[in-house]
Amino acid sequence: MKLHWSPRSPFVRKVMILAHETGLEGRLQLIRTVVAMAQPNHALLADNPLSKIPTLVLDDGVVLYDSRVICEYLDHLHDGPRLFPLTPVERWQALRRQALGDGILDVLLLWRNERMKPRERQTQALLDAFELKVNTALRMLEREAPALNAAPFDIGHIGIGCALSYIDFRFPGRDWRASRPQLTSWHRGFQGRPSVQRTEPTDQD
Amino acid sequence: MKLHWSPRSPFVRKVMILAHETGLEGRLQLIRTVVAMAQPNHALLADNPLSKIPTLVLDDGVVLYDSRVICEYLDHLHDGPRLFPLTPVERWQALRRQALGDGILDVLLLWRNERMKPRERQTQALLDAFELKVNTALRMLEREAPALNAAPFDIGHIGIGCALSYIDFRFPGRDWRASRPQLTSWHRGFQGRPSVQRTEPTDQD
Repeated sequence: MKLHWSPRSPFVRKVMILAHETGLEGRLQLIRTVVAMAQPNHALLADNPLSKIPTLVLDDGVVLYDSRVICEYLDHLHDGPRLFPLTPVERWQALRRQALGDGILDVLLLWRNERMKPRERQTQALLDAFELKVNTALRMLEREAPALNAAPFDIGHIGIGCALSYIDFRFPGRDWRASRPQLTSWHRGFQGRPSVQRTEPTDQD
Repeated sequence: MKLHWSPRSPFVRKVMILAHETGLEGRLQLIRTVVAMAQPNHALLADNPLSKIPTLVLDDGVVLYDSRVICEYLDHLHDGPRLFPLTPVERWQALRRQALGDGILDVLLLWRNERMKPRERQTQALLDAFELKVNTALRMLEREAPALNAAPFDIGHIGIGCALSYIDFRFPGRDWRASRPQLTSWHRGFQGRPSVQRTEPTDQD
């Protein structure tokens, strides 16, 4: 399988963490693919008309995207514990947490794009809205951290962990840990996993 | 169940179409909820820190989001044919199509937001990228239309149909049907479904 990949994309990282957790990383042939919101990648457009990564090309030519679909696909290829739980209560909780992590990432990516524009083209109401959403999510996650700790590791943990780690990577000045001891502690455990350490983002190619 | 709802959100519409298709619409208590990217809804933030709709509040207080999670949740509450196929090949195809439809909608929503800004705050490279992505997706869907026609109706059809209908609703000047006869024909069939007709968006509350 070929994976359109970047060492910096947090959505690609979800896939790579799941691949490491499930022993599938050796089956992924990584294709370094550069995308930006305002710069579609023309080679990638042939596989994914939205020019987004991760995009997975199976050996029979079938193309899968986005990160949620690829993660669930990979999760059915191994015999270990499922990271997409099959029992209803656990499944909805895991999928909801993944959606929360993905949603935080969507906000962070838009926020970063907005901040990189020249000042006169930035929209203050958007910057304010992004900050409010991320802070509200972090407050909720602090309350939810004990439940995160108690549940077996699943796709929800991957989604939330990738979102928090992306704050560290792209918003290093934001001290999200202050006054959030439980979430900080949970994230420390997340960062200790080999799958997470092996997929640490880098500003170097 | 309470659903944070709007008659204009294309992601809410996915949920409502699925609810009508599966006979669950009577179990949803609709809460009219207004959101915009730069205007978080403070009442909604308590249920969903990202202030996005649809958000579903179950009778036991559990909250589910986003549209994909809500749709899959509702799909396990009925005894009819599953709109999230359970067999692998059909499932990955359906989920990939849903992701394509959702991705087109994400682009359309960003595009519309960008176009509504004062001219001097718009970014031309973004507008160009949005147009290229939507056109590339439409070209691919024209090729895929025969397969869409042949497959049993599922969440993939809902996702793609909602994306195309949103172009008609918010970008009425764009004639996406020109030179796309197969996709036009498939979409005509989609629009003929009672579930789609009952969820037609409106500019009126």
